[in-house]
Amino acid sequence: MITSSTNVQMKNLIKLQKNARTRREQQAFVVEGKKIFEEAKLYGVVKQAYVTSAYLENLEEKPEAYFGKIPYTLVEEKILKEVADTMTPQGILAIVEKPIYSLDQLLAKDKANYVVLEDLRDPGNLGTIMRTAEGADMAGVVMSKETVDLFNPKVVRSTMGSIFRVPFVYVENIYEAVAQMQEAGVSIVATDLQGTHMYHEEKYGKKTGIVIGNEAKGISGQMRQQADVLVKIPMGGKLESLNASVAAGIMMYQLFISGAERF
Amino acid sequence: MITSSTNVQMKNLIKLQKNARTRREQQAFVVEGKKIFEEAKLYGVVKQAYVTSAYLENLEEKPEAYFGKIPYTLVEEKILKEVADTMTPQGILAIVEKPIYSLDQLLAKDKANYVVLEDLRDPGNLGTIMRTAEGADMAGVVMSKETVDLFNPKVVRSTMGSIFRVPFVYVENIYEAVAQMQEAGVSIVATDLQGTHMYHEEKYGKKTGIVIGNEAKGISGQMRQQADVLVKIPMGGKLESLNASVAAGIMMYQLFISGAERF
Repeated sequence: MITSSTNVQMKNLIKLQKNARTRREQQAFVVEGKKIFEEAKLYGVVKQAYVTSAYLENLEEKPEAYFGKIPYTLVEEKILKEVADTMTPQGILAIVEKPIYSLDQLLAKDKANYVVLEDLRDPGNLGTIMRTAEGADMAGVVMSKETVDLFNPKVVRSTMGSIFRVPFVYVENIYEAVAQMQEAGVSIVATDLQGTHMYHEEKYGKKTGIVIGNEAKGISGQMRQQADVLVKIPMGGKLESLNASVAAGIMMYQLFISGAERF
Repeated sequence: MITSSTNVQMKNLIKLQKNARTRREQQAFVVEGKKIFEEAKLYGVVKQAYVTSAYLENLEEKPEAYFGKIPYTLVEEKILKEVADTMTPQGILAIVEKPIYSLDQLLAKDKANYVVLEDLRDPGNLGTIMRTAEGADMAGVVMSKETVDLFNPKVVRSTMGSIFRVPFVYVENIYEAVAQMQEAGVSIVATDLQGTHMYHEEKYGKKTGIVIGNEAKGISGQMRQQADVLVKIPMGGKLESLNASVAAGIMMYQLFISGAERF
């Protein structure tokens, strides 16, 4: 049993949670809590679990059956709490392999909707967008490399497990990626305050990618140039913009509910 | 100039930010930063401002002209940062009167959409819903008394000023309030996983109130009974629910964009 937070494995867990760079180097990230651990287990991506003895005692099956081939190590409850990102890690932390997809994989569909994120910065927004993307049946999420790290513990939690179910890719150059999407027949729709088409009056194609810009700056000038259509979400009152994850949600669901006519 | 955080006024500022009870007793809350201070100033609700000398120096007009009748007190920059809820209070904090509305006031409209929140708990969600409510031109937000406090500094920030522009009311008994809304001709539409009508296929009345439930539990059994219609937001993948502020945003915009046909 691990009884100290200076244990090498505990130090690695802390680093994996704090540093995007460590997560990149190890191509892994940390999940916390029973529900998301079991989700990761289902997808066969767990590398190592750390559990309290209380967690093992509360299992309805034997640990060997529950963990299968996943190596698990006992950790003192106090230490697990110390190492965890939340106050209530529910007795389990695990190191999980990052899912890896390519843009080509995401694009290998006849009828599909995508979300393109240009430099989104808020972890809560990214997690919420991943979650909504699953609900709205998006084929994938394409992110500029400046977008906040999806494997940040706060983002992982707010995806509610969608991180394992919605394909995504970080691209080196978002404009080249968008051009590649356009070549593959995806119509690129950017939401913009200067948009001339109202989002709900627009006819969307069989393959559509919606672009959501940075929280403070919106979409870039180059993205505005490159998009096939600029749509506007109407806005009452004196409000300048919606929250990015709400704007993304409204757009994704507009694509989703209009799908029946388009597909 | 105030040079200590143990100063009586600074202690009161801290309490007003930390305790919902203090905010209730004083019927006041705290705003931070230039933009929202100027918004509050516009609405004539600022009781007292606390500024750094740098803030005064950067003004484009004389302090007397800028503040008008608002009393302002100089505070050492270090102290203001210590007292503030954010890392970067931008040189100004202010105590602001709580806007007060009654349900009758909110209901005195011929054509209107409302949001009803049943025990919403996440400050970020509430702030985002207020912001979206302004964008979607809602006539008001009705909240159960168990809903998180709108005057919590995190909520205030995430409303982006909507807190001064969207009427709202906390009610003692949400079921009685909903009954009163129904008597006033408002059709109550609750979003529920068990809903039999798809939200985008439903015809909404001239006065519609959408109910958003608690993040973990959804709407209560009693609300489900009392609602005129239960609508469902369709969900792909294995997702159980959307984030509450995204679900609210999708519903509010559905009402907003269908308004042209209804009004």
